[in-house]
Amino acid sequence: MTCLFTHDHLLSIEQLDCDDITQILDASESFIHVSRRPVRKVPTLRGKTIINMFFEDSTRTRTSFELAGKRLSADVVNVSGKGSSVSKGESLMDTCRTLEAMRPDVVVMRHPASGAPEYVAKRVSCSVINGGDGAHAHPTQALLDAYMIRHRFGTLSGLRVAICGDISHSRVARSNATLLSKFGSEVRLCGPRTLMPSHAESLNARIYYDLREALLDVDVIMLLRIQHERLSGALLPTLREYARTYGVSAKHLESASERAIVMHPGPMNRGVEIHSALADDDRSVILDQVEAGVAVRMAVLYLLAKDIREKNPEQAAASAG
Amino acid sequence: MTCLFTHDHLLSIEQLDCDDITQILDASESFIHVSRRPVRKVPTLRGKTIINMFFEDSTRTRTSFELAGKRLSADVVNVSGKGSSVSKGESLMDTCRTLEAMRPDVVVMRHPASGAPEYVAKRVSCSVINGGDGAHAHPTQALLDAYMIRHRFGTLSGLRVAICGDISHSRVARSNATLLSKFGSEVRLCGPRTLMPSHAESLNARIYYDLREALLDVDVIMLLRIQHERLSGALLPTLREYARTYGVSAKHLESASERAIVMHPGPMNRGVEIHSALADDDRSVILDQVEAGVAVRMAVLYLLAKDIREKNPEQAAASAG
Amino acid sequence: MTCLFTHDHLLSIEQLDCDDITQILDASESFIHVSRRPVRKVPTLRGKTIINMFFEDSTRTRTSFELAGKRLSADVVNVSGKGSSVSKGESLMDTCRTLEAMRPDVVVMRHPASGAPEYVAKRVSCSVINGGDGAHAHPTQALLDAYMIRHRFGTLSGLRVAICGDISHSRVARSNATLLSKFGSEVRLCGPRTLMPSHAESLNARIYYDLREALLDVDVIMLLRIQHERLSGALLPTLREYARTYGVSAKHLESASERAIVMHPGPMNRGVEIHSALADDDRSVILDQVEAGVAVRMAVLYLLAKDIREKNPEQAAASAG
Repeated sequence: MTCLFTHDHLLSIEQLDCDDITQILDASESFIHVSRRPVRKVPTLRGKTIINMFFEDSTRTRTSFELAGKRLSADVVNVSGKGSSVSKGESLMDTCRTLEAMRPDVVVMRHPASGAPEYVAKRVSCSVINGGDGAHAHPTQALLDAYMIRHRFGTLSGLRVAICGDISHSRVARSNATLLSKFGSEVRLCGPRTLMPSHAESLNARIYYDLREALLDVDVIMLLRIQHERLSGALLPTLREYARTYGVSAKHLESASERAIVMHPGPMNRGVEIHSALADDDRSVILDQVEAGVAVRMAVLYLLAKDIREKNPEQAAASAG
Repeated sequence: MTCLFTHDHLLSIEQLDCDDITQILDASESFIHVSRRPVRKVPTLRGKTIINMFFEDSTRTRTSFELAGKRLSADVVNVSGKGSSVSKGESLMDTCRTLEAMRPDVVVMRHPASGAPEYVAKRVSCSVINGGDGAHAHPTQALLDAYMIRHRFGTLSGLRVAICGDISHSRVARSNATLLSKFGSEVRLCGPRTLMPSHAESLNARIYYDLREALLDVDVIMLLRIQHERLSGALLPTLREYARTYGVSAKHLESASERAIVMHPGPMNRGVEIHSALADDDRSVILDQVEAGVAVRMAVLYLLAKDIREKNPEQAAASAG
Repeated sequence: MTCLFTHDHLLSIEQLDCDDITQILDASESFIHVSRRPVRKVPTLRGKTIINMFFEDSTRTRTSFELAGKRLSADVVNVSGKGSSVSKGESLMDTCRTLEAMRPDVVVMRHPASGAPEYVAKRVSCSVINGGDGAHAHPTQALLDAYMIRHRFGTLSGLRVAICGDISHSRVARSNATLLSKFGSEVRLCGPRTLMPSHAESLNARIYYDLREALLDVDVIMLLRIQHERLSGALLPTLREYARTYGVSAKHLESASERAIVMHPGPMNRGVEIHSALADDDRSVILDQVEAGVAVRMAVLYLLAKDIREKNPEQAAASAG
């Protein structure tokens, strides 16, 4: 491996080129084995500090980053938005500068406001990982999804991928569409008109309002979580009607590619966006995505926090394995 | 030690035979010294992952498991029910499968619903420890209580043990009664009729409604916490009346065995189920129970998470000491 | 270094003499470099247990202690007041004795009631650090402030220090005034009459109600956070009026010493007690205070938890460096 990961932060998929993404996925291949060994730990980031700063609740993403950090032997500290200085009227920037002054190597930040991690990253000296910001981006989710797809199909190019659900509020859809189109896969966005963003075409994607058309010959079906709070916004009819029109069942896969897989970032609403039987079907890789998530986050933490610039990169990669 | 702990999970005392219990208590004897040393830590579970998943608040049990894991050098991650995926509508099973996909070695689970840990344990590949489920079971509490009793009396057999208080809602009473009757001790359950379960006889216990009768010649008095929320349920008269009829004071110990000890799982309501002076009396072992709790949880985590099947068991036990 | 830190607890600045304080600050000088190295960790407290028991929310103090403990390789467990046994009706003392029975080396305690940490410290065998109690004391804040002042001026003696804001509710003001007057610096307390305690003179400080007079020729300006909840108490006029009368801007520094520095314990209310531009000015050391906080807490944890009595103190200090 001669190319080197030169980014200081991971804020969105847009900032990465295909080589960067390939490098992250290659590193993840090593790290996925760490979590499967009896001793699920490597000393790679010993003495490094990671702060998980979550201004929105998230069991799976926070736990995934915490485990990733601990399995790299880093010290991990969780800070939640509730009860934090922010609730005492401190500005986001002052909270972040305060944490920065404690000399973390990486801050993982989830925030309800789009752009918050980027705003912070420009003003602090530590690395910032966007752990999901508003409807903007969720780059580690897109990377773990890419890991799964590459693992199954051996490539990220030339595939047909349908992303179905509440596209307009989904950072997952945005980040995935951006990543997959970079590699030359065909991205299809499918959902009701009220949940389709006006800028959907700018994502290099085809827009579908009919689920059956969207799934024709696809290799990958990515389902998005319907967030119940959208219902109050009158953007959605009842859940039952949504499930009837856009809920995906095994039957819908008949028109898909024979090797098609079903993905979901979780948490699932069984019986709404995904029929319960399909969630447990062999073609579902939903739990594999979770496992990949830890490995991909280990890779990202490693590439950002490791003092690799001082080292022979091949040696550094070997010590990580 | 030639017998081997062959269980994958610790869900209830019912699943254990006397040899299993003896093995856990023997291991606890080694581990209690770890917490008393200047360096309170052994490398036994280095590289193992423990997830504490608490769907009910609990300072002492969560802290006890967290310390037990850390003193074994495991990585410990806390997940609370609040703000978790469950509150976003995900099913318990999907939450647990998600965590399982992150490859923990052990999940410690506290849940308000009886049977939840068992339901999960049947469907995941990692070990599950029941950290207390509804009114069903609290096996590590019964084990730490057994540790204390054995430590004081040298045996778990032939003793008279009175368990007093809200029997019907108490997982502690159930687990203790089961454990002690396995070893041939006499278990007496004492409390008001409204707080005595209809199946009390099935616990191999004698039922008492009169506190003085129940305490006659007993070796061990286990008091249960009166939970204030029961009051609203009209199952209890006022706390003052409860304290007058069932609150235990030093005076009540006069008819007990001379060597009698007083136990309480905490948190105590001083002046309700236990007179404050008795809580601080020499015969009270309430704080020793807390210390034993860390050691017993270390033993259980060790027996479930250690790769002992691959090893000479005596060697493994020695390395733990 | 021949003197030895002989205290079992850190409860207030009053308990320390100048030699104690000097010893803590000297140790902090070593520890500040630990957080700046690529490997931000020393093995000094490996196998020690620290419990952070916070009965009030605090991002920065809790995170600072947690990082300090982890960078010394101690095991750190967080316990929050919410959802704790205290909320189930257990007394503070029983909660603390329960945690003590788990054999921590140090308990860091923040509590809304003045004197709570001292009350507990008298009754437990582990070390207790007061992490802020009511309006009483916040000794590690005063120590980190002293660290900054000594770092800038080379001394803690003969300086003029103005502490401005809500003096009567501020544990920070009390602890700082006590520390600085011990070393023979002149302490000036400045704020509106309604926020000046009746015992202000007992702090060996001069009282000012006029900001300009208070800042004349001062070397250090310490600003205190105005707590919004005071407004409802009718002790304060509007925030705008407070800002006009007591909010400090760069203009106010014109009459101060040329080398004057501006301090704030955070979280800041920009535009209230401090003009936003001044917070970002070169003379502001607010973020340096945060960095010093981790180092000072490492020093305090080290001096309390390390088994230094058994060792050559110089050797112990060297191994910490």
